[in-house]
Amino acid sequence: AYAADQIDLLDTLVAKQVLTQAEADQLRANQKSQATVEVGKKGLVVKSADKNYSINVGGRIHADFATTDHEDLAGGKDAIDGTEIRRARLHIKGNVGKQWSYVLETDFAGINVSQKDVNVGYHLKDLPFTITAGHQKQAVSMELEESSNDILFTERSTVAALSTPYFDRALGVTIGGGGDNWHFKTGVFGDTTASGTADEGSGFGMRGSYAPIAENGKVLHFGASFGMRKTSDDYLANGKSPSFSYKTSNFSGLKPVEAKIGLEEMSEVQLGILEFAAISGKWSFQSELAQNRVERDTGDNVGFNAQYVQVGYSVFGGQRTYKASEGEFKHLSVQSGGALELALRLDQIDLEDKDISGGKAKRAGIAVNWYPNNNVRIMFDYIRSFDLDGGAIQNINNEPAGDIDTFAARIQWNI
Amino acid sequence: AYAADQIDLLDTLVAKQVLTQAEADQLRANQKSQATVEVGKKGLVVKSADKNYSINVGGRIHADFATTDHEDLAGGKDAIDGTEIRRARLHIKGNVGKQWSYVLETDFAGINVSQKDVNVGYHLKDLPFTITAGHQKQAVSMELEESSNDILFTERSTVAALSTPYFDRALGVTIGGGGDNWHFKTGVFGDTTASGTADEGSGFGMRGSYAPIAENGKVLHFGASFGMRKTSDDYLANGKSPSFSYKTSNFSGLKPVEAKIGLEEMSEVQLGILEFAAISGKWSFQSELAQNRVERDTGDNVGFNAQYVQVGYSVFGGQRTYKASEGEFKHLSVQSGGALELALRLDQIDLEDKDISGGKAKRAGIAVNWYPNNNVRIMFDYIRSFDLDGGAIQNINNEPAGDIDTFAARIQWNI
Amino acid sequence: AYAADQIDLLDTLVAKQVLTQAEADQLRANQKSQATVEVGKKGLVVKSADKNYSINVGGRIHADFATTDHEDLAGGKDAIDGTEIRRARLHIKGNVGKQWSYVLETDFAGINVSQKDVNVGYHLKDLPFTITAGHQKQAVSMELEESSNDILFTERSTVAALSTPYFDRALGVTIGGGGDNWHFKTGVFGDTTASGTADEGSGFGMRGSYAPIAENGKVLHFGASFGMRKTSDDYLANGKSPSFSYKTSNFSGLKPVEAKIGLEEMSEVQLGILEFAAISGKWSFQSELAQNRVERDTGDNVGFNAQYVQVGYSVFGGQRTYKASEGEFKHLSVQSGGALELALRLDQIDLEDKDISGGKAKRAGIAVNWYPNNNVRIMFDYIRSFDLDGGAIQNINNEPAGDIDTFAARIQWNI
Repeated sequence: AYAADQIDLLDTLVAKQVLTQAEADQLRANQKSQATVEVGKKGLVVKSADKNYSINVGGRIHADFATTDHEDLAGGKDAIDGTEIRRARLHIKGNVGKQWSYVLETDFAGINVSQKDVNVGYHLKDLPFTITAGHQKQAVSMELEESSNDILFTERSTVAALSTPYFDRALGVTIGGGGDNWHFKTGVFGDTTASGTADEGSGFGMRGSYAPIAENGKVLHFGASFGMRKTSDDYLANGKSPSFSYKTSNFSGLKPVEAKIGLEEMSEVQLGILEFAAISGKWSFQSELAQNRVERDTGDNVGFNAQYVQVGYSVFGGQRTYKASEGEFKHLSVQSGGALELALRLDQIDLEDKDISGGKAKRAGIAVNWYPNNNVRIMFDYIRSFDLDGGAIQNINNEPAGDIDTFAARIQWNI
Repeated sequence: AYAADQIDLLDTLVAKQVLTQAEADQLRANQKSQATVEVGKKGLVVKSADKNYSINVGGRIHADFATTDHEDLAGGKDAIDGTEIRRARLHIKGNVGKQWSYVLETDFAGINVSQKDVNVGYHLKDLPFTITAGHQKQAVSMELEESSNDILFTERSTVAALSTPYFDRALGVTIGGGGDNWHFKTGVFGDTTASGTADEGSGFGMRGSYAPIAENGKVLHFGASFGMRKTSDDYLANGKSPSFSYKTSNFSGLKPVEAKIGLEEMSEVQLGILEFAAISGKWSFQSELAQNRVERDTGDNVGFNAQYVQVGYSVFGGQRTYKASEGEFKHLSVQSGGALELALRLDQIDLEDKDISGGKAKRAGIAVNWYPNNNVRIMFDYIRSFDLDGGAIQNINNEPAGDIDTFAARIQWNI
Repeated sequence: AYAADQIDLLDTLVAKQVLTQAEADQLRANQKSQATVEVGKKGLVVKSADKNYSINVGGRIHADFATTDHEDLAGGKDAIDGTEIRRARLHIKGNVGKQWSYVLETDFAGINVSQKDVNVGYHLKDLPFTITAGHQKQAVSMELEESSNDILFTERSTVAALSTPYFDRALGVTIGGGGDNWHFKTGVFGDTTASGTADEGSGFGMRGSYAPIAENGKVLHFGASFGMRKTSDDYLANGKSPSFSYKTSNFSGLKPVEAKIGLEEMSEVQLGILEFAAISGKWSFQSELAQNRVERDTGDNVGFNAQYVQVGYSVFGGQRTYKASEGEFKHLSVQSGGALELALRLDQIDLEDKDISGGKAKRAGIAVNWYPNNNVRIMFDYIRSFDLDGGAIQNINNEPAGDIDTFAARIQWNI
């Protein structure tokens, strides 16, 4: 910002014949050695004059309230109502040298820390690809790849029951890139922060997308991803005991469906996902179909599936954006005066197969998201789980549990 | 800073008739688009030219040494002597848009993190009030509302045994504001970082103050606060097992008084506090009277009380400051050359009521605080607990314990 | 940077007789009140114009992969292979006032935080010494004093089995300084982040070095250090159970040697170290000889020893640097185009004495370190432990275990 503005003064002085063009050029060269400093919707951004170095300081706060309503459940199961700092993250990121980038992002919510993006990237010179080593997402599922700052609802869909946590962040090496209408990324991984007492498991992820239309306000997106993870020698999958479930809120503890794979059983899990998404003016559409396969050392292989469709509508002041080179929806672009967005999501999950009875569930949810500006979002979700069957929870008469309703609110800040 | 300085150059060039006024105005408008950067006693502060965005990076270190002397106590109780990083905090804060502010502050002392101020504020346009959502203090007790960077002694008074932790930070929504001689804040809260397995408790806090005199070096402050907290379904109060106590130092583990409320007993706790404070030149005075009431599901209600008076005297180089719009004493203003402050505190607590025998204690403490500059403070406290009676600790003859003396030193840095 | 460049414009305008020298001087004085901002290989550095305040924001990432090969071991012992974020640190540091400095550095690797340098420094006015209070290194062992960003191998030598963790960081007060060819530092310490339930232990450290030659590319360094630590009342040494060992990688869990001192035995540990190091052009050499002494309340005193020699060779693009005033090797200076460094290390350890049979081991390691630039390093280590004897591990035939080979790779970023 500064260098650009100063040029005007020098140009003016040249025009006035106070300075010669040569003098102005020399002064300009000096000025270009100054770092540029900006603070705005992307936080603090400082770049060295030669662009060889940069740093961005930012973070996010997601402060939640959630309450769940359900009939009396067998085993005294009960959803916890209350509040939570869902995410409290600080990051620095930038580049060191023209081809190397870094990001160091930590989440302080709760009493433990968790590393989020903690990695180093190398940007190939003549190809639109970046090699990234360190803790990062595993290139599985559009929804999971998207930032929690940008998703339409406070929590991801039932597909996340299959994709998270085994295909959320882990330590590995990826290569990925994209162009005006495509994206591709693949990588190999060990486990996330290891806690086991045996050799780690390993993972593989791959995701590609193609957008025949990728204009402002008009997008058509097709994508697919595949993830595979071998459990560790002590049968942990990405550091966790194998099970698939969703909770009514992040802290409710109530799982309408839950498939627990027995101890020392699961050797490998695979997940395939198809994506279809679109934007048309104020409307956005996003869907994924997910099918997994659990290989077991003892017992037959089993497979579970989940799907979601969601529609967003910008009532005023904003428009959902899309980044073709990452194959992801990004944050609503918010005009001054703020924006209001409505959303509807239908999703379902089936965790019943062979001897595993993790249950089935359908869900319908509506969301009202208010964006006072580009950096603050206030969210209200209402989500009903219905047609619960089999598996995880019964009411006190040992019948399938009735509808479970969750209301969630969040205030979100991010820079 | 930059824009303001540049005006001089442009003005000079206009005066020299090198530039016309119109040209200067235009150049000046360009320059105003530059962010301003300052580093000083408030840390790093970067503001966008239009003031719509800002970020402040800062933190605090409190590194402590403490040793406690006491006669041999029954049950082998013994104070731990040693050192501690009492606080190691990093924060970013600022505004995004003219009316929205944020603060993300985390404490890294110990092996766990704890969230401190992690919230988002909305500043009303035509009223001197701010609505704040997220993790924040509960608007109870002048001393508790004041920053740990600014309090006279290394640890707060016996009143904190009633106010902390149930009325320290929690997740909620407040509205607060103030003017030249008043402050008011109130809010509703869930629990702080939840750990229970049942629905959270809830809290309410309210504090107001009025300063008929609020001049530089001359302050008269009256205040009152009231807090209420219902325990969670598993009888935790703001996430903790109900008990009231103070320790001789933060890590000594020795509690001269301690009222433990039985498991599954406490349903609600209320706390009322009156405040009186004043500044007259080099002298500052602060006092609070606190009375609480514990409602129990089983057993009668009980009530405890605590009081403190403290006097600060600035020997040289500084003067205690007061912010009427927050109803709080702030940091000593330190002149170049540094400042020296002496302090005396008398406080007491009575945790004896009905079947609860938590003990009584009186304390007298003196403090010597040296401020080499506005950002460093070296503190020495000597505190005697005396007239111990009833309750928590006896000597090895099962008589009330004799005097307990604690010496504490701290080096503090904050920006 | 800014002020310096602007001088040229003002000088030019004076030369052009647009401004008088007096006017230029006045404008220059104004400009000097502006903070300078730089982002580069040392991260973000902002200094106030009067240099009274500064802040540096930076951090480091060490992302590791390691695998260990060994024959079948008695007791089912097995090295964990896998990945780890070894270090993920963020720091702010700088000065507040001309004589006071601060550093607040936290490590987020794993699920807990750990405080690294968290301290406040006072720089004496007329002497080359700084008094530092807070959490800091204990002035023992050249290798331990050196930054983990700069050491030749991913992990320190067998000497670290004696020096770490008892003489790694703790909370205390040091005085230290140095000149063109000397360094000296000493201090007294409590424990690091305390976890015990008894009074802390205490420590003392002292290290000095002398460099008769300390030129660019030509260094001769002699040093010595001594550390002493008394265990706490519950027999913890700097917060840890007394034992001496090294692991094949930080997370492998496999200890080729391990001397466990019995519970409630160790009262004090002393460690003496001699250092010799040198640089000659592309070659660097570093060695330490360490002997400790463990005083026991029950049983005789025992003593262990360890030594290492290591040689670095810069194939192209860089040269190891040395800072005489700290008596430490620093980061390779990396030219544009990057640098490649090879290293060889031989080290050994003897943990056999009297009734303690912790084993003996020799190691040989080679390292290939690639520095694409000053802020990124990619490391490959191959280390063999051999001549294992006595103590810690046997093979399944209860014979001394055979050679143990570890391959480790790291990507490192630091600013």
